[in-house]
Order: sequence, then structure tokens, then C-alpha cells
Amino acid sequence: MEKWQGDIALLDRLADAARAASLPWFRNGVVAKNKLDQGFDPVTAADTAVEDAIRRLLAEHRPDDGIVGEEGADTPSRSGRTWIIDPIDGTRAFLTGLPSWCVLIALTDETGPVLSVIDQPFTGERFFGTRGSAGRTAHLERNGARSALATRRTARLSSALGETTDAFLFEGAEWDAFQAVRGKARLFRYGLDAYGYAMVAAGGLDFVVESGLHAWDVAALIPVVEGAGGIVTNWAGGPAHGGGQVLASAHPALHEEILALLAPAAKR
Amino acid sequence: MEKWQGDIALLDRLADAARAASLPWFRNGVVAKNKLDQGFDPVTAADTAVEDAIRRLLAEHRPDDGIVGEEGADTPSRSGRTWIIDPIDGTRAFLTGLPSWCVLIALTDETGPVLSVIDQPFTGERFFGTRGSAGRTAHLERNGARSALATRRTARLSSALGETTDAFLFEGAEWDAFQAVRGKARLFRYGLDAYGYAMVAAGGLDFVVESGLHAWDVAALIPVVEGAGGIVTNWAGGPAHGGGQVLASAHPALHEEILALLAPAAKR
Repeated sequence: MEKWQGDIALLDRLADAARAASLPWFRNGVVAKNKLDQGFDPVTAADTAVEDAIRRLLAEHRPDDGIVGEEGADTPSRSGRTWIIDPIDGTRAFLTGLPSWCVLIALTDETGPVLSVIDQPFTGERFFGTRGSAGRTAHLERNGARSALATRRTARLSSALGETTDAFLFEGAEWDAFQAVRGKARLFRYGLDAYGYAMVAAGGLDFVVESGLHAWDVAALIPVVEGAGGIVTNWAGGPAHGGGQVLASAHPALHEEILALLAPAAKR
Repeated sequence: MEKWQGDIALLDRLADAARAASLPWFRNGVVAKNKLDQGFDPVTAADTAVEDAIRRLLAEHRPDDGIVGEEGADTPSRSGRTWIIDPIDGTRAFLTGLPSWCVLIALTDETGPVLSVIDQPFTGERFFGTRGSAGRTAHLERNGARSALATRRTARLSSALGETTDAFLFEGAEWDAFQAVRGKARLFRYGLDAYGYAMVAAGGLDFVVESGLHAWDVAALIPVVEGAGGIVTNWAGGPAHGGGQVLASAHPALHEEILALLAPAAKR
């Protein structure tokens, strides 16, 4: 773990910079009301400001690391390490004033994503996670207080609390598989984007099921959920960090039960 | 307005008491993990604590007013005024650790709901509204700062941002009507309970469409949305404060366009 302390401290600074760059654009009524219809997009402004702020710090402190962001061109890695950035995950939530958008930052090495943060600037919640070669741990920092994150121990779908951002994003075989899962779950929630994965880590939700994710949507979710004791794979049970169909669960047995229902729609 | 100043100050005190009574139960991991499976329900504990705190203050300061709450027995009114309380709106959000649950408190007189608050204790947001015989105004208080609330001026559904808590709560004709609305809207969000109506007042969302609401779910939403310039009715265009099918919109023309699509499923 000690070799990661410098990166963990830097991750905190990156998230601080992202928070400062994004909050001025959130619920900015003048922008949203007067400029949206003139083609100005406050989400794009926030996206660009956040990614620029993070890239500046990385260029200064980790010049040999690669960078993959949603907005800018990829920076090739000379160190074997790459930072993955989704400056504003949940752009629709951001646009509509909802505090479920997040800043996502992950560091990957040859083992996959090893350190990450899911940050919600408006509520002041910062979810940290480590996994793989960085070990396994996760915690939440809010208002200066730190608390350990641990997933629920729900082993059966009939007891489980599930979530997806928008059920109508599923089509065809994915819609059928989703309905099979929803029909067996104890209850279902909607609309959370990356914040839903943070809630799995925090022991609120038992699982999140989604599809059509990008690599930069997913990388930062994995250390937080797995560091808290959960599991994240694609619908075929393989590595999720490339994006696509993603299932994050609080418990391995629950994960297996849901994967069996998703299997008919799983892309391999 | 001056005759209402005492009630507005009391409403603030009621919301303070509700906040203090509810927050200790939110994300209370010990309770949620160890006691839920033994039949203990943290939402019920929070519901009861909040409603008791509000009823105590009302008994002391407004002994002649009636009280209708989700939990306790109705207190008959001797003044013509009645307080309507939903101690924890969004019990599923509360249970899963999501900061979209709210405390709802409204004061009604012979004109309907006249004063109300939608309070989110975790984010520290308190949305106030007045309408009817109390005049029309709405504002948000957070971290000691006050900002006026005003709805968006979106007049057409094709430009509008809509929301509903759970699309799968609609069945039969309601499902068809909902799909007609969703298909024409610019985008749709999910999962917000009362917080969605606060976002209409705040100029984030353009409308919320729901059904199956109770009177105590709805009363507090109306002064906040209408005080900010919006409109709330049932799906038939009549008064919404009895509950049932509810539509809240940012703009009257948008409201009419959506009502026309909901009409085939409207209960009269």
C-alpha cells in the first residue's frame, strides 16, 4: 500500500480541482435559462473545465502517465499507468439540477483500475476505493469526517435492492433480461448514474445493472465497489473496465444469481 | 402576507425539528444491517420520530389547528386550518441511502394548501412556498443563503425535461399515457419522489407526472411549485391536493399539452 500513498494524495488534489471547476456551472440559472437555447451547453462548459484542471495537474505531477478523458485527446502512457477521467458523469442530472452527477477519476495499471474516486461536489461526498495491486479498501469523506465503506451482505435477489439509471435504455433481449431481474428483486430504484455504484459501496443498494457504458464511465466505479467488498463484471462475468454491459453487486452469490438472468442478453 | 409571518416562522421551526429527528436514522448502518432482517424498519423509526416532533410543536403553538399525518390519527381542526405532514416522503430512497427523500409539511385553509416546505435534511436544502390566500412566492435556503425559486419557461413538450419516480407504477391506460408523454419529451429522469417537484420549482426540471399519490404526499408540493410560477393539477386538470394522479409543470402551455396526452387515462 505504501507505494500508492503519493497517488492517493494526488487523487484527492485532482478531485479538489474538479470540484472547484464544476460547482460554478451547477444550477447556474443565468447560463441554463438564457444560453441553452442559443446553443450554449453548461454541461460541456463544466466537462471541459474539469478535464482541463485535472490534465494540468497530471502534466505537472505525473508527466509520464497516460490520460484517457471523455473530452480531450488521449495522452499516451510512458509509465504503464493511465488516468481515466469522466469529468461530469450524469450530464442529464447535471443539466436538471440533480445532485447525482459525479466526477470520476481512476488510475489504471497492468492489473486494471487500482485507485479511484467518485466525487459529488454539491453534497460534498467523496468516495475513495483501491483494489488489485493497491490492495482493497474503500471509504467516504464528507465534511471532514471519514467513514469506511462496506457493501451489504444480501445474497439473494428476492431480498435485494436494485437500481438502473434509465430502464428505457434497454432494448430487445436486454429489456427482457432487465425485466426478469426487476421482477425478482425486492425493490428497484432509478436515475442515479455513477452515484448508484457509490451507494452499492456504501451499503445502501445491493446492485446496479446497466448497459452501453463507456470505459471512462466504468473505470472509477470498480475500485470503490470492490474496495468495499462488492464485485463488478460485465454481463458475461468478465472484466467490466472496457465498458458496455455492467453489473455491480454487493455480494458474490447475488452477483451469480443476477448474471444467470442476464445471460441470454450478454455480449461475449 | 403579514398575517402569515408567524406561520412561516413556525414552519421553519417544524422543519428544524424534523431534520434533527430524521438525520440520525439516515444511513445508520448498524440499524440497517443488523435489525432490518429482524423486522425492525429504520424508515418507520424515522417516520415516527419526525411526526411526533412536529405534532408536539403544533400542540404547543397551534392547539386549535387540525393535523393530518401519515403515521398518527387525525387531529380535528377547530380553527379551519389543518397541517398536513408526510414525515419521510420517499421511504425507498431513505432506505437505500439516497438523498432524495424529503420531509413535507403544509398548512391548508379553506383555499387549499397555502404554505409549505419541502426539506432535504442531508443536503441541507429547504424549499419554501406560499400560494392562495398567502400570496405567491417560493425560495430555497441552504447553508444560510436564500435564493428565489422560479420555474423554467418551457412552453412545449418537445423541449421539456420530465421526471417520474418509477415508470413501472403506471399500469394499463396510465402506462400508455405515460409512454405518449415520454416519447414526446426532450428527456426523462426517474427516481426523485418529492425532490422532483422541488426541482421543477428550482428551474431544473420542466414537469413531473405521477399517480397513486396520497393527500399527504401532495399538499406540500403545491405551494412550492406554484409559488415559483408553476402549476399543479390532477390529470383531469382539477385540484391535486386530494392526491391520486398528479401533474406538476413549469409553464401553463406545457401543462395543457401534457394534460391532453394524459386525458385518456384521467380519473374524474
